[in-house]
Amino acid sequence: MKILVLGGDGFCGWPTALHLSKIGHDVVIVDNLSRRKIDLELEVESLTPISHMSTRLEAWGELTGKRIGFHNIDVSHQYQRLLDLITNEQVDAIIHFAEQRAAPYSMKGSKGKRYTVDNNLNATNNVLCAIVDSGRDIHLVHLGTMGVYGYGTSGMKIPEGYLNVQIQTDSGSVINQEILYPANPGSIYHMTKTQDALCFAFYNKNDGLRITDLHQGIVWGTYTEETQLDERLINRFDYDGDYGTVLNRFLMQAAIGHPLTVHGTGGQTRAFIHIRDTVRCIEIALSNPPKHGEKVKIFNQMTETHRVRELAQLIARLTGAEIAYLPNPRKEDDENELHVENKCFLELGLNPTTLEDGLLLEVKEIAEKYAGRCDRSKILCKSYWTEIQHQKSEDATIFHTIDRSDKRATGHTDRYEVVSGEV
Amino acid sequence: MKILVLGGDGFCGWPTALHLSKIGHDVVIVDNLSRRKIDLELEVESLTPISHMSTRLEAWGELTGKRIGFHNIDVSHQYQRLLDLITNEQVDAIIHFAEQRAAPYSMKGSKGKRYTVDNNLNATNNVLCAIVDSGRDIHLVHLGTMGVYGYGTSGMKIPEGYLNVQIQTDSGSVINQEILYPANPGSIYHMTKTQDALCFAFYNKNDGLRITDLHQGIVWGTYTEETQLDERLINRFDYDGDYGTVLNRFLMQAAIGHPLTVHGTGGQTRAFIHIRDTVRCIEIALSNPPKHGEKVKIFNQMTETHRVRELAQLIARLTGAEIAYLPNPRKEDDENELHVENKCFLELGLNPTTLEDGLLLEVKEIAEKYAGRCDRSKILCKSYWTEIQHQKSEDATIFHTIDRSDKRATGHTDRYEVVSGEV
Repeated sequence: MKILVLGGDGFCGWPTALHLSKIGHDVVIVDNLSRRKIDLELEVESLTPISHMSTRLEAWGELTGKRIGFHNIDVSHQYQRLLDLITNEQVDAIIHFAEQRAAPYSMKGSKGKRYTVDNNLNATNNVLCAIVDSGRDIHLVHLGTMGVYGYGTSGMKIPEGYLNVQIQTDSGSVINQEILYPANPGSIYHMTKTQDALCFAFYNKNDGLRITDLHQGIVWGTYTEETQLDERLINRFDYDGDYGTVLNRFLMQAAIGHPLTVHGTGGQTRAFIHIRDTVRCIEIALSNPPKHGEKVKIFNQMTETHRVRELAQLIARLTGAEIAYLPNPRKEDDENELHVENKCFLELGLNPTTLEDGLLLEVKEIAEKYAGRCDRSKILCKSYWTEIQHQKSEDATIFHTIDRSDKRATGHTDRYEVVSGEV
Repeated sequence: MKILVLGGDGFCGWPTALHLSKIGHDVVIVDNLSRRKIDLELEVESLTPISHMSTRLEAWGELTGKRIGFHNIDVSHQYQRLLDLITNEQVDAIIHFAEQRAAPYSMKGSKGKRYTVDNNLNATNNVLCAIVDSGRDIHLVHLGTMGVYGYGTSGMKIPEGYLNVQIQTDSGSVINQEILYPANPGSIYHMTKTQDALCFAFYNKNDGLRITDLHQGIVWGTYTEETQLDERLINRFDYDGDYGTVLNRFLMQAAIGHPLTVHGTGGQTRAFIHIRDTVRCIEIALSNPPKHGEKVKIFNQMTETHRVRELAQLIARLTGAEIAYLPNPRKEDDENELHVENKCFLELGLNPTTLEDGLLLEVKEIAEKYAGRCDRSKILCKSYWTEIQHQKSEDATIFHTIDRSDKRATGHTDRYEVVSGEV
């Protein structure tokens, strides 16, 4: 198959492009390098030393004999170039990762909010529009997020995208209806993904487009079978307060002797998936497209759920790290339950990498190996969901409790001072 | 109150600005004149001779002694100017009409789709962002559409924005939950309004913004008490295939002796409201803002529902016009029921203008008076929801039935030929 990978330079896009090339597809990457440019703006760098795109692609060709194409196109704003590419390359499937994907960055004042809305919604609409304009029967696979559901389901397993509800009519009869799971996004980033879902539903209904939307959990890990082949193929590893995802941040913090930074009580339950399983899921989704006339196919792309503080405690036990409880910059419940249905992928053959299998390898092979590249000043999250939370964090001195894992059994906690500007 | 009217040069925005000024508010219009510019692009003109903005505002000052401010700002793309204006003018309320509002235009190929998504979603996000950035406690009133609900409710009255549903949990217990009414938009334009709704819900939840979203029916009529004062204040009247709304199109068609163009069977039931009631509803919404901490307030802003063919028959009876049934360029059910809850506005004192009261006045005072300005080549809708519908309409010759109202009683129908390019 000829496959476009939009956002193919990013954390999920790059290993996906390699994996699809590896298994025999003809892959073309489209990316405007926005992720690297945001790093420049935030003055941070991937913990792992990622190569330039041309070096990456040369290395891949050298090692495997396979060619991956690359076009620097801004999918949100260069419509004609996107459409021409789809037509000229006779594309069969498009994987759409071309969205700003960090919740904290999307809450970084009006600049972050506006960039995320403009970039993500125009990108999605442009891709759908271009598929219609091309007249080609293209399967679109989009990377969404578990965050569209919101968190805090009361005793209910989150289904895969759709929800059956009963509606009482005026005459007293009851209508059974399947609806898109009601959206409850926790950030502007998550909001754009809920808006994407409405866009998919419309183009599916009006134009019969075949679309798969993957509601992904928090990705952890770095290496896939393909990126591991050569350091020039290495995947990015973000540890900063905006783009670093919680588990990878813990791994890196443990490696450099920084306390594991838990926001709030750490009672948030989240869904997780290893990057190796992400690329497998995309492969599975591609092999199982919706039929013509079928509604948008939605999979929950996650393999485990954990409470954040339990993850911190696990890593603390494994590594001897301390845990610091910081004020939560997000506006969310302190504690939530999360039960997720994910049988679609399991039934289609996904064999998950579990935390138990993968954690120590990641600590050793990535976090410790590249610990010297870490800029400690970038670790804490400085994006606040509201001005009030921002102001609170700017109070002269904030005290937080810190647990030392070795002392935890005795219930002993120390007081730990964080001065202004550090949180 | 100091009130910004975004989109204050448009069909709903202009009479609203005048009405709010008239009742004593300090009004500032923001508009980038996009509606007039789209007229240039489509090579059409309002049936009524609308004046330039400066003439409009001068006339208003001359007649009433009241000053309305005006700033030419693109709300979707000139964020800093919008924010500065809100801050400098110390705004108390914002009425947000600054969106592309024609469903056919939004389906006019990739250009119409992309413009509508980019313009509408960025406008809404920018307004919300600017309210947060300004730090002011501003009440936002947004003009939405009944179209967010989709059409075809099976025996259920469409509630005002929210729906109570029952959800069966895995354990067998039932959760009662209030959700945003599940979106089912019929065009890209309608889709953007359903995406707006998610945006409002998020900013309301995260930032506590006070927002009223008005789900408006199809507006008809032209005159309000204020625009009637002087021809320089006249409101626009669109009759073309993209921007003309169904009832106004019928009125104008009757006035010039053109058959009333019904799409499909005309079995679509739609909700209607007179422009005089639109401005009253905005006034009522402004006087009844949501409380702090209250969810987004949603009103159904409509006063009557009718089937399209029944409206055509009514006007045919009043005027002797013929009715032509054309292929429907939209993708929708031929026939649908529509029952709408609208008690919020009625309880707050709205006293609707009914079709019976207003129809003949509009025919005489607008449609007939300005009939000479009509360009007959612009009457038929040339925007198709899908390429298949477009192709069908391009078939060499299409036959349509035409009913002559005078012959209708006998059940007699003629065959009527429409040549290629006319539909």
